Formats: sequence, structure tokens, C-alpha cells
Amino acid sequence: MRMCCVSSAKVRKVDDRSLIFPANEYRARVSKLHSAMAERDLAALLLTTAPDVFYVTGFLTRFWESPTRPWFVIVPSTGAPVAVIPAIGADLMGRCWIDDIRTWAAPDPEDDGVSLLAETLSELLGPRARIGLPMGLETHLRMPIADYHKLLDAIAPQMLVDGTDALQRVREIKSHTEIERIRTICGVADRTFARVPEFAQVGTPLSEVFRSFQRMLLEEGADWVSYVAGGAGRGGYGDVISPADDRPLQAGDVLMLDTGAVRDGYFCDFNRNYAIGPVGVDTIRAQAILHGAMDDILKMLRTGMRSCDVHEAFCAALTRRGGVPLDGRLGHGLGLTLTEWPSLTAKDKTVLRESMVLTLEPGVEISPGRILVHEENIVLRKDGPELLSRRAPQILPQVPL
Amino acid sequence: MRMCCVSSAKVRKVDDRSLIFPANEYRARVSKLHSAMAERDLAALLLTTAPDVFYVTGFLTRFWESPTRPWFVIVPSTGAPVAVIPAIGADLMGRCWIDDIRTWAAPDPEDDGVSLLAETLSELLGPRARIGLPMGLETHLRMPIADYHKLLDAIAPQMLVDGTDALQRVREIKSHTEIERIRTICGVADRTFARVPEFAQVGTPLSEVFRSFQRMLLEEGADWVSYVAGGAGRGGYGDVISPADDRPLQAGDVLMLDTGAVRDGYFCDFNRNYAIGPVGVDTIRAQAILHGAMDDILKMLRTGMRSCDVHEAFCAALTRRGGVPLDGRLGHGLGLTLTEWPSLTAKDKTVLRESMVLTLEPGVEISPGRILVHEENIVLRKDGPELLSRRAPQILPQVPL
Repeated sequence: MRMCCVSSAKVRKVDDRSLIFPANEYRARVSKLHSAMAERDLAALLLTTAPDVFYVTGFLTRFWESPTRPWFVIVPSTGAPVAVIPAIGADLMGRCWIDDIRTWAAPDPEDDGVSLLAETLSELLGPRARIGLPMGLETHLRMPIADYHKLLDAIAPQMLVDGTDALQRVREIKSHTEIERIRTICGVADRTFARVPEFAQVGTPLSEVFRSFQRMLLEEGADWVSYVAGGAGRGGYGDVISPADDRPLQAGDVLMLDTGAVRDGYFCDFNRNYAIGPVGVDTIRAQAILHGAMDDILKMLRTGMRSCDVHEAFCAALTRRGGVPLDGRLGHGLGLTLTEWPSLTAKDKTVLRESMVLTLEPGVEISPGRILVHEENIVLRKDGPELLSRRAPQILPQVPL
Repeated sequence: MRMCCVSSAKVRKVDDRSLIFPANEYRARVSKLHSAMAERDLAALLLTTAPDVFYVTGFLTRFWESPTRPWFVIVPSTGAPVAVIPAIGADLMGRCWIDDIRTWAAPDPEDDGVSLLAETLSELLGPRARIGLPMGLETHLRMPIADYHKLLDAIAPQMLVDGTDALQRVREIKSHTEIERIRTICGVADRTFARVPEFAQVGTPLSEVFRSFQRMLLEEGADWVSYVAGGAGRGGYGDVISPADDRPLQAGDVLMLDTGAVRDGYFCDFNRNYAIGPVGVDTIRAQAILHGAMDDILKMLRTGMRSCDVHEAFCAALTRRGGVPLDGRLGHGLGLTLTEWPSLTAKDKTVLRESMVLTLEPGVEISPGRILVHEENIVLRKDGPELLSRRAPQILPQVPL
């Protein structure tokens, strides 16, 4: 991987230049962040991760895969964001809608952007501003922790406060444009899932199934495939976060494939299950329980419910239908990352609002170590959920032997 | 994405169970870390990122793509690592070689593993231990910063010290097993690069070139493709970190493709350039300069040189041959991530040692905004570099019109 030679400093003003979306999309997002900051008495937000930076600027690159360099974007309480970034990113950031781009020659073992960041914060915000940094659940700070301490020394430490709520309450409500992008990548996955029987046959090693699945996702229009998981086992699977092994599919297996494919920076995240030939009655029963419970939740899900209410309703629906619900969350937010807050757990009190995009993923235990999981992607509308994924079939699709 | 239902607690002892590599590979790594810790008076290392956790445990999953949950592995100064992880990972971690696995039900908005981590650190290490946390250049802490502050409150803050050096001096020296894995994935990329003329034709949109390239990497044996970048432009390209756009390839373009494909958790990272039909004399000249400078460095590179010495030698070779070297680093470490330390820059004083795996990536400016970059992957042997990538051709390969 490599870098072009660029010179630093502020970039020319070109109205409405932007990447991925028209500049107004980003302006609207930043305007919502301005309101959220005003309500919380924040003078700025300081962002360091790929999705947060993409959200406000349109800066989209797989270069984040390199852990070498930190990137900073400041969203002041008025006006456009300011980028404080490695010189290697100046050209791409310069094609985004923002104008104030400050760079340093990274990686610099003596001062990897910390002084420039501290100077920029002081210049823009003064010495007593409250700067919101995402510090809470589901966040992390993408910079060396030693540099974070240097930053705390360079500005007053009390200037950095928790900005998680300001950012998450805005990001979790998706715009029409965002919803349509998620719908598009869900369509890519839908078409790919329909083709799984083309490559998942008795005897095919799971590792080959994973490769073929990723190839078809690309063929169907994914820009890249950031996540594939799955599992296969007799009548169910035990683990769904492991890398694929070379075990061949066998008659009587249930194969599950799950994907986070990406298009224009937006993720889908849902799975599908396949019977490799006939499967046992307990699997067929688990399928019916899950499909029915998904029906129940799709019917009753409304704005104003809390994440924990949906979790409770899911557990009740699964139990009522005779299933043993899995521990862990039964769905979550979706958009710029494979998983976003809120989490459909017993402890998450987030209120569900119109235009949230969510996954619903009930799972049941068939027998110890053997599970079945369903997953759909939805957008929450005023009057209930709208599916973004094509609903999984009621009867487990069977790959003929 | 989803989770299986698992119960917590310590996992049964099974000798030599492990993932990806035999358990002795991980034991040897941890033994080297023990020595590095002893030299630096560290009672433990605390690891939070995917590559660090994989390095000591063999825990390999794309589930890290979900930013929801933090993961912790403690490497005490004697004995095997201890995992403090979300319950969803217990099954997979239980199949790795380590025995002491402690879990909590994540995500938990009230206490997302912080208490369990603090308790485990206290139990294992006592109240006055020096715990090395990677804090320096090219690192970050993958947990919410608010939870980091809670951890500092729960244990004495002075217990956490910078462990970057202990970890990096060990990880940067690759074992035979690691080198062979990197060679394997380099071979996957070599074979794919040879097939680029099959899909990169005049008129093909760059976005389609990127998709086909990824599909072929999978076909040739990549487990997944974490990084693809590139560019195309008349006689050279301007930017190589942008996502692909839909501009069709044109006669006279130089197309560059760069990849970090992954197999068994190990990356390759090199690029190749292609002329779309005949290109101008300045491009041909740049190609000769780069190929010659790479020859020069491959001949003179030796253990004991520092990163900055190689940078200086590269700049001198490029200049002597009439090129204008690009700013930024001219190579870097490679292995568990797309880019690792050291960086071949003027400021990086890291001493190069036997069994380091590095990229060499000289670039020149052809004219303002138009560059050409070469890249190879090597392992540094006692008597000089051994190529892991098949050397790029001396003459720019031409895709016939």
C-alpha cells in the first residue's frame, strides 16, 4: 500500500464537490450534530474512526485497514468539519466537501499529529471548550493511548467529555439516502443467497463455500466483503464466529451463511440457512419457531418501544412457540458498520425511533451445542418495520443431494 | 452476525488443541514475550486488538469487524495467556491452546467487562504489578475510553505502562511458520496479478476491475480480501487510497492494483502496474528508474541497517537514476496486519534484523499529480533479502488494445 506525494495545507473551495453523496447530505448530518451539540453544551466533537469520519465528510477508503496512522476530524458547534490527517489522505479528503484540511507527515515517531491536533483544537475552540469524544459503549479511540495522554496534557484534560450520546442519537436515525444504500446492499446479499445451492453441495469444504459466497457477493455488486461467517453441522451449528475449516458439507447438515457486504460504505448484515438434503424433525421445528417468532415481532414492533422491550418480546414469542431462546443480543443497529448500537438485550434501554435501521436475529438452541439463527434487516417506519432484506422462506430451503 | 449460547468459565484442558498453527508455535511466541517482559520488568502484557490476540492465542475470526465488544488477553510474565472476553467468543477461544478463559455477557451497558478485567488482573498480578499496554506508534486501545478510565480507577493507574517495545520487538521477528504463510498469500496475489489482463480492458470501469480482482484473489486461494486499492490515469495515477470510481480504463492509462489479501490470518501487501496499450516515454522511464532502484536496494539491504538507512538509500538510488522520490514511507513491516512497524522513513531508527518481513515500495513523481509506485514483499535473511513476491517485470506489462 502506498501514498501519493501531496503538499499540506488548506484546500481550494469547490462548491458541492463531495464523494459518495451530494454535499447536502453531509451538511444535513452536520446540522443535526450541531443541534445535538447545542443541547449538550458541546463546543465540538472529536472523531477518530472510519465510520464517524465517513459520516461527516464522505471520506471513504479501505486504507483504514492500515493501523499505522491516526486520523482526526473535528466537528465544531457551527460550520463545517475540520480534518487533521496524515498527508497521504489530503488528496482524497480534498475531494470531499470540507475545506479546512491540515496535514502532517505521518508516521512520525516524534509527534504523530498530536501537536497539530492540539493547536487546531485551541485555535478553533479556545482554552475552555467542552469537546465531545465518543467514549461510551461500542466506541473506541483510534489513536495511540500514549498520544491520548499527550493530548490531555496539551489541552486541559477536563476539555474532553463524553460525546457518545450526541453522536449516536444522530447517526442512528438514517436518512432516505442511507436507507436506500442499505436496501441496495441487502439486495446484493439477497441475490447471492439465492445462488448458494449453486456452490454448496455435499462434499464441498466449508472453506470453499465461504470463498464462493464472497465471490458471488462481488459478482452481484458488493464493493467489498468485510464480513462472512457461518457454520455447518448435523441439523444445526455450534459456533458462528469461527473461520471456515475444510470439513466437507455432509447430508443432513444445516449450512448457515451470514454476511456484512459493503456498497458505498454501507453494510447489510443478515444470514440464511440451508438444509443439505433432508434434515431431522427437531431442525424443522426450530425453523418453524424462528419464522413464527419473526412474524410476531414484525407485526408488533413500533417506534417508542425500547430495545429491551423488543428483546423481551422476542424471548416471549420464542418461548411461547416452544423454543429455547439463545443468550446474547437478538438484534442491533446497522449502517456504517456491521453492527451499531442499540443492542436488543435485556439491559439496553434505547428508545427505538423512526428511520432506525436494525437487524432482528432470533436464535434458538436445538440441543446442547446445536443452534439455529434467523436474521432480517429492517427500517423502522412510523407505522412499523419495513423489510430491507427479502424475507427468509418459511420452509428451510433444501440443497438436493 | 450472531452468537451461540455458551456458558462461561474455565475450559477443559486438552493438550495441544489449537487453531491455525500447532500449539508449540504459540508457546514459542509467548516464551519470547516472557523474555521481553523480564528484560523490561513487566509483570504482564495486556492486549486488546485482533492481531495481538491472534498472535498469542490463535483466536482468528472476522467477528472483530463488529465494534460492539471489547476483548482482552493478559499475557503474564510466566505461563499461558488468560482471556477475558465476551461470552460469544468462549467456544472459539476454547478451541485455542489456552485454558483460562473468563467471559461476561457482552454488550453490557452497565459494566462491559471492566470489573472482570480488573479482578482478573488483581488476582493474577497483585496490586503493584507493572502491566505493559501497547501505547505507542501504530497501536491503539480497542476498548471504550470511558472504560479505560474506569480501569485506571479500579487498578492503580501507575500499574499500566507502555508495553509497545516488548511486544513489537517480538512480533516483528517472524517464525519459519509465519514466513511460509506470508509466502503462500504472496503466491495467491502473484497468480492473480498474472491474470489481470483477463479482466482489465479498455472500457472496463475501475470499479469492475476492483471487483474482478477481488474475485480472482478468492479463486486463487485467499480466505478473504481485507484491502484493495489502486488507481488508473493517463501515464500514471494520482491517488491510491480512494475507492474505485466508475471511470472506464482508457488507452494510455497506467493501471495500478495493490492488495492486502489474507490467508490463515496473514497478509501480503504488494502492487503491480499495467499499461493499457502503449504509454508515453516518461512513464517508461519512471518504470526503469523504479525497477533499477529496487535492484539497488535488494542488493545492499542487510541486517543491522536501520529503517532510516534504507529510506536514505532508496532516495539516493531513485535520485541517482533521475527520479523524484515520493514523500512518505518507502516500505514497512508486514504480517498480521496490512502494515506493521517499522516504517522506512527518515525518522524511524528501528534496527532491521533477521526474519523481519518487509515491504519495499519506492515511488516516483512523473509529473505533478502523476506517480508510479513499485512494491515487493521480502523476508530479511542473514545474508540479505529473499523475495516473497515474484519480482515485478522489468518492462511494464502491456494490456493489448
